[in-house]
Amino acid sequence: MDELGLASTRMPTYKLIYFDAKGLGEAIRCILSYMGADWEEERIATRFANPSIWKDMKEDVKYGKLPILEVDGKQQMYQSAAICRYLASEAGLLGSNAWENLQIDSIVDSFKDLVIVIQGTLKTQDEAAKTALRETVRAESLPYYLNLYEETMKENNGYLANGKLSWADFYVVGYLESAEAIFGGGIFDKYPNLGALKEKLYNIPNVKKWIDKRPKTF
Amino acid sequence: MDELGLASTRMPTYKLIYFDAKGLGEAIRCILSYMGADWEEERIATRFANPSIWKDMKEDVKYGKLPILEVDGKQQMYQSAAICRYLASEAGLLGSNAWENLQIDSIVDSFKDLVIVIQGTLKTQDEAAKTALRETVRAESLPYYLNLYEETMKENNGYLANGKLSWADFYVVGYLESAEAIFGGGIFDKYPNLGALKEKLYNIPNVKKWIDKRPKTF
Repeated sequence: MDELGLASTRMPTYKLIYFDAKGLGEAIRCILSYMGADWEEERIATRFANPSIWKDMKEDVKYGKLPILEVDGKQQMYQSAAICRYLASEAGLLGSNAWENLQIDSIVDSFKDLVIVIQGTLKTQDEAAKTALRETVRAESLPYYLNLYEETMKENNGYLANGKLSWADFYVVGYLESAEAIFGGGIFDKYPNLGALKEKLYNIPNVKKWIDKRPKTF
Repeated sequence: MDELGLASTRMPTYKLIYFDAKGLGEAIRCILSYMGADWEEERIATRFANPSIWKDMKEDVKYGKLPILEVDGKQQMYQSAAICRYLASEAGLLGSNAWENLQIDSIVDSFKDLVIVIQGTLKTQDEAAKTALRETVRAESLPYYLNLYEETMKENNGYLANGKLSWADFYVVGYLESAEAIFGGGIFDKYPNLGALKEKLYNIPNVKKWIDKRPKTF
């Protein structure tokens, strides 16, 4: 029996609670698919589709944030990177040692710095301020981080860390798909190593099963 | 020989590059001290002491962020949580399995959501906006997260995760010391479990060596 009280031969049942979007949920979906796991989804309307649903729900959610991954209908996992790191330990997507895990973690945490800047462009209420902020992200923040990743990938066999596939690749590509929708496309064309990584990930047979059936969302 | 090319019997030499403040560097300092490691520091003037020093330096720093931990004068580690997690693997401050590590990671990542809100109050240039933002953090964000942690600690033997000491405890307490300075004190008095945790951490003999000699900063 493991820590969840599960016999190790049975795969747990998962439910992902996240917005009806790729965002910070897509890496979790891709890793679950990579593992060959089944999962249910509870998709919450985004603020663009219906601003009141999440607003009403938020105060009853621990930490007031999504995604949440529920295991066997009882244990809840919080925080996207923490969830991915946990699943990665089941999926064989961690590094081989602490130093390799540090490389993965520092890519993910630096990427979250970019995510926060992007999320800031969604929250601003004032339309002029939002347009100006979005232009700064398009012209400065995105190129800054994505050029760094392009360089890193040149030295890492086309992956983001340690010269091999890890959960950092899913984390970055999954969220960049939403970023591409927000910023009007072209990210994966403009940054060729990231574009090639996306192709490579989405053609892994188990991952492709998810890509082929996933709902059309930003 | 390990991944850094070090014989495992020799402790590496460390240099911490961070602002002249506790902030996101203090957990690293405490964990290094807990491990019995020696380290050098390069302390960069904060924006309050001298706004131009970091501004000039930032563009030459990968990811444009501090802290950085340098190992043996060559390898650089980036991102505070990633660095602490790596050191924790050396220091025996990780969880015992992936599920326990998830509990630690989700505490740290949720806390970073609070850190971002707090950092937002430091960056705003407009004084009236800064005062209003700071009041919201004091009245809403801080109590929201800190009450959650108080509840968690009641179920965890006075620690933040898994009923035992982990690197999450150092991460949260270290940054809250700066938060206390920013918000005018009282955090550790008002949240008794956090106050008791701070006392407990800082009285661990190896940690106390650092606490007794550290520079007086916010």
